[in-house]
Amino acid sequence: MMCDRTKNTNIRLSLPAVCVVWEIAMIILFGVFIRYNWESDAHWAESKHNLSDIENDFYYRYPSFQDVHVMIFVGFGFLMTFLKRYSFGGVGFNFLIAAFGIQWALLMQGWFGSLDYSDGKIKVGVENFINADFCVAGCLIAYGALLGKVSPVQLLVLTLFGVTLYAVEEHIIIKIIHARDAGGSMVIHTFGGYYGLAISWMLYRPNLDQSSRLQGSKYHSDVFAMIGTLFLWMFWPSFNSAIAGHGDGQHRAFINTYLSLAATVLTTFALSSLFQKHGKLDMVHIQNSTLAGGVAVGTAAEFMLTPYGSLIVGFCCGVLSTLGYVFITPFLEKHMKIQDTCGIHNLHAMPGFLGGVVGAITAAAASDTVYSHEGLVNTFDFKDEFKDMVPTVQGGHQAGALCVALIFGIGGGILVGAVLRLPIWGDPADDNCFDDEAYWEVRVGYNNHMQNKDV
Amino acid sequence: MMCDRTKNTNIRLSLPAVCVVWEIAMIILFGVFIRYNWESDAHWAESKHNLSDIENDFYYRYPSFQDVHVMIFVGFGFLMTFLKRYSFGGVGFNFLIAAFGIQWALLMQGWFGSLDYSDGKIKVGVENFINADFCVAGCLIAYGALLGKVSPVQLLVLTLFGVTLYAVEEHIIIKIIHARDAGGSMVIHTFGGYYGLAISWMLYRPNLDQSSRLQGSKYHSDVFAMIGTLFLWMFWPSFNSAIAGHGDGQHRAFINTYLSLAATVLTTFALSSLFQKHGKLDMVHIQNSTLAGGVAVGTAAEFMLTPYGSLIVGFCCGVLSTLGYVFITPFLEKHMKIQDTCGIHNLHAMPGFLGGVVGAITAAAASDTVYSHEGLVNTFDFKDEFKDMVPTVQGGHQAGALCVALIFGIGGGILVGAVLRLPIWGDPADDNCFDDEAYWEVRVGYNNHMQNKDV
Amino acid sequence: MMCDRTKNTNIRLSLPAVCVVWEIAMIILFGVFIRYNWESDAHWAESKHNLSDIENDFYYRYPSFQDVHVMIFVGFGFLMTFLKRYSFGGVGFNFLIAAFGIQWALLMQGWFGSLDYSDGKIKVGVENFINADFCVAGCLIAYGALLGKVSPVQLLVLTLFGVTLYAVEEHIIIKIIHARDAGGSMVIHTFGGYYGLAISWMLYRPNLDQSSRLQGSKYHSDVFAMIGTLFLWMFWPSFNSAIAGHGDGQHRAFINTYLSLAATVLTTFALSSLFQKHGKLDMVHIQNSTLAGGVAVGTAAEFMLTPYGSLIVGFCCGVLSTLGYVFITPFLEKHMKIQDTCGIHNLHAMPGFLGGVVGAITAAAASDTVYSHEGLVNTFDFKDEFKDMVPTVQGGHQAGALCVALIFGIGGGILVGAVLRLPIWGDPADDNCFDDEAYWEVRVGYNNHMQNKDV
Repeated sequence: MMCDRTKNTNIRLSLPAVCVVWEIAMIILFGVFIRYNWESDAHWAESKHNLSDIENDFYYRYPSFQDVHVMIFVGFGFLMTFLKRYSFGGVGFNFLIAAFGIQWALLMQGWFGSLDYSDGKIKVGVENFINADFCVAGCLIAYGALLGKVSPVQLLVLTLFGVTLYAVEEHIIIKIIHARDAGGSMVIHTFGGYYGLAISWMLYRPNLDQSSRLQGSKYHSDVFAMIGTLFLWMFWPSFNSAIAGHGDGQHRAFINTYLSLAATVLTTFALSSLFQKHGKLDMVHIQNSTLAGGVAVGTAAEFMLTPYGSLIVGFCCGVLSTLGYVFITPFLEKHMKIQDTCGIHNLHAMPGFLGGVVGAITAAAASDTVYSHEGLVNTFDFKDEFKDMVPTVQGGHQAGALCVALIFGIGGGILVGAVLRLPIWGDPADDNCFDDEAYWEVRVGYNNHMQNKDV
Repeated sequence: MMCDRTKNTNIRLSLPAVCVVWEIAMIILFGVFIRYNWESDAHWAESKHNLSDIENDFYYRYPSFQDVHVMIFVGFGFLMTFLKRYSFGGVGFNFLIAAFGIQWALLMQGWFGSLDYSDGKIKVGVENFINADFCVAGCLIAYGALLGKVSPVQLLVLTLFGVTLYAVEEHIIIKIIHARDAGGSMVIHTFGGYYGLAISWMLYRPNLDQSSRLQGSKYHSDVFAMIGTLFLWMFWPSFNSAIAGHGDGQHRAFINTYLSLAATVLTTFALSSLFQKHGKLDMVHIQNSTLAGGVAVGTAAEFMLTPYGSLIVGFCCGVLSTLGYVFITPFLEKHMKIQDTCGIHNLHAMPGFLGGVVGAITAAAASDTVYSHEGLVNTFDFKDEFKDMVPTVQGGHQAGALCVALIFGIGGGILVGAVLRLPIWGDPADDNCFDDEAYWEVRVGYNNHMQNKDV
Repeated sequence: MMCDRTKNTNIRLSLPAVCVVWEIAMIILFGVFIRYNWESDAHWAESKHNLSDIENDFYYRYPSFQDVHVMIFVGFGFLMTFLKRYSFGGVGFNFLIAAFGIQWALLMQGWFGSLDYSDGKIKVGVENFINADFCVAGCLIAYGALLGKVSPVQLLVLTLFGVTLYAVEEHIIIKIIHARDAGGSMVIHTFGGYYGLAISWMLYRPNLDQSSRLQGSKYHSDVFAMIGTLFLWMFWPSFNSAIAGHGDGQHRAFINTYLSLAATVLTTFALSSLFQKHGKLDMVHIQNSTLAGGVAVGTAAEFMLTPYGSLIVGFCCGVLSTLGYVFITPFLEKHMKIQDTCGIHNLHAMPGFLGGVVGAITAAAASDTVYSHEGLVNTFDFKDEFKDMVPTVQGGHQAGALCVALIFGIGGGILVGAVLRLPIWGDPADDNCFDDEAYWEVRVGYNNHMQNKDV
């Protein structure tokens, strides 16, 4: 790589400085605010009274939490290893920003949702950690649009703002509007998708074709990416059921998600073959569009969507998402100045929006007959100040929530994109994108070999 | 690949048509038949009475389900990535047929096992989804024998028939014969193994050596395959215990499987080294034979097999399976016209048969002393119409069940093989097998490179 | 590889002989000693009385067990695939010695901890299997220092002695000294780390630079290693909480570990960038040092370490471990004759020692106010003969336990190292280290290619 560079990607001062300063800030803020909650504190032995140990929320949620954790770090991480020369950056920066984001999310979400007003402390347990993983998922989705084109310092800034925006957006949607969104179609995917697309629009690179030699996959990087795809696909039922209601809620959320995903695979393969010459399948579609059904069933996962309803959602999403890769992504790049490396518009933004619509319709159609009275109250949390809520009104609230997610995503993305355009973040030059050498020590041996062969 | 081809692998019409038609059929059939069961329906809030939420079957079985799910998609999928040019097909088609198979399995198994005669609906919960994964495992095993030699359309046909046969076979074995088979040595592995071998025999290709250049592994494809091996190996205890009885049943099935697998590893390494020149280990054995102990302990996993009994089963299986790779697979190919790409005869068919025999013996030897009376009734389900059953008779039933599995496997395979010989399915020519280029868009850059170097 | 060899790496007799003899010994010893425990025996149906099935210890611990199992086989295994030509040996021998070690560990730990004196049998259940995985982790850590330089027969000897030493050391630390060590900072990591380093010191190879051409990674082997890293990182909370107390104990151990690991990632990235020219990140650090926080929080994981306390531990460990890779590993190799292939001194030995110190301090500072009286008794097991124990004295016991771990590690390593120096084990010559060809059948095609290109 002897090309002259107009940009300096040296992050020897900025990256360590940001990491250390922020980690110290985390320690101080955790020291002031974060404490164990009732179920993780040693006092539980005395205060649980006649509860069995197995009724600690840990046993309801920890297996799901671990699956979600795998999705965040292995799923998102390996899905982004598909580029021929950016596997380190894909899995490595995903690791960095997720590890940072979950700490900041515990604080931000804690202030809004788990603050104990009696002592001013945030009390955390397993559900907070699932929510932190959810929160950071929004930022990782946004990273997908920017993969290969930004510096790790930019990603940390994106995450700091992204988590903050997410926590506010989530509070408005869940607490104020009182929408339900167990799997986060709106809160996570719509927000994260449009957040990333808006940033990408702000950071548009007209000369990105200068690194076009690195913009594809190679054989084994595609196989690595399938690790990400499969762990996301397999554990998505845990994602959508992780914070659903105990008992039938979690059970039903798992079933709906499982079925929607299964249907998506079939239509993704169908459309992928149909739109390629000679009917050959495209790994990009298989890696990504097969997951869209999990996104779109997120909001309605804990509702009585019915098994065939889930299949229908998955069917449509496989079609929509694959068509997105074939037609919409090139269009966005050519005409809208949105360069979307991983195609998050097809995997997260559109399916997330669709999921919000499905959720609103399903909620509006809910009835005592289908849910039983107690079931309706449980599923939609028609309690306390919302005890007089009815399903049709709830449907309206769901639609309103979807708008909030869109506004936060697009508005927040434009704002953060403006910040990231400052010339201080060490981002790569146009001819240096999608190249791990910008930020990673790449051993000499294979390095030479790879340049010559461009494999 | 400029070789002339006598066959047309273009599946641009057939694959999309089959996928879409079948998915629409699934939606209609699910709409007519499939509903949430008691524990996943919103009515549970009212109808559970004084059960704790944690006693929902979801919490007994979901962690095991997720492990099984990983085995089906990552385990089987990556185990089949070992070929140098067929990793996309290995993991990708595995994904496709598993996603299709589980939907059809829910219907087929539901009609036989979960039909609520009061309203004609199949009521599904977590156990049905485990059983669907089990069912599709049989078809994935069969795929192993055919890897690289069939088209995805053929695989979908194989799966449609395979799932159907499986559901009938399972019903006969479990419900009519009243055999026990928690880990599916007979129902899954014996059936699936012989099903695949019989199809392979029907589809014999005398000139397969024309693609011999692609019939091996390369360094990194062998490492990818180890991902499959290890996830299968680690989660096999969950596989065998997933639908075992609550409490001690699941606990014991896990222990027996774990121990059997540990012993198998030792004898596989021993035999692999013993039968290679210079004592060098062969990755094919390590990838496959180390798993045979999990297959062979399947039927007896929930019985009082004793820990050392499990070790003995595993010990024998490691020996048997490795010898199979060294001696039997070449023999089958040369003299029996059975081309078994992954060696499923050594990993599933033989160990499955052995597992059926072990199960029959262990069942026949059961006693009140060893199990306690209530334990015996629970473990062997000596209830209702079988309340007068005794262990020795149960042993005979187990042996009969093994014959049923064999007959369904071989007979079904010959039948389905005959269907798959029709010249309409887009299968590859002999000189075009084991090559992802037949069905996948393979990027140009590395493609050229790989052809030249044949790496 | 046409270099002349002074050593014979043919293990065709020794490896099979050792594997078969030891497996037969296992079968006999299991036959004499090992039985199902109360919760996995079929008698449980009668003897559980009014316990719910869900209160079987299986449901408390099995999800954590499976995560630990993944760490042992995929985590440790793939972490050791990073070398360009030793991926088979990394993941394969890890598999072999873990499968052997868990069997021997069940016996050794059983004799010390689970022997039922009424009938002379060891009664095993899920907790024993977690402990067996823990035990074998010590040997796998030691393997990390020796990776590429020893034969599989030597590894089996290392494991036989290592498990034996571990069981004695664990008994002294946990039962006699009555130290607490839920995540094994002392028992597993300090012991295993120094055990491996002492053996490496005994097996010092002054001419190891003769295989320096193979001593690095290549692009894809680094990505494979990230699979190991991430599964270790994600499941470490399960590791540290797997045998912690039911309820709040497991809940808290998970939280502390999760937070410590998150902080470690930030400081590892910071230090890695700071100490490389141009601020480029080094995959060696990211693969290893990011995990040090999980090691260091092991002992104190179930204590009331507080969330910010966990962050501080993780912060320091990321710094310490990365500095270790930059400065200490080269120093150890140059001046102390310790060749540490994977840098276990930085990932296990030092952080483990630090974890022991943190545990001692945290224990000494415990109080009724922070834990509640019952919480203190539960957490530190101040029962029976230790019912008059106080936290400050417990702190002293913890410190003593750390010394025991050190002594067993270093002393045992020197002893076993002396045994492994015997010229009968088939270890490779200096110019033949880090090469899979010594013990594995490596296919010809890619083999030639790789030698020529040295990729």
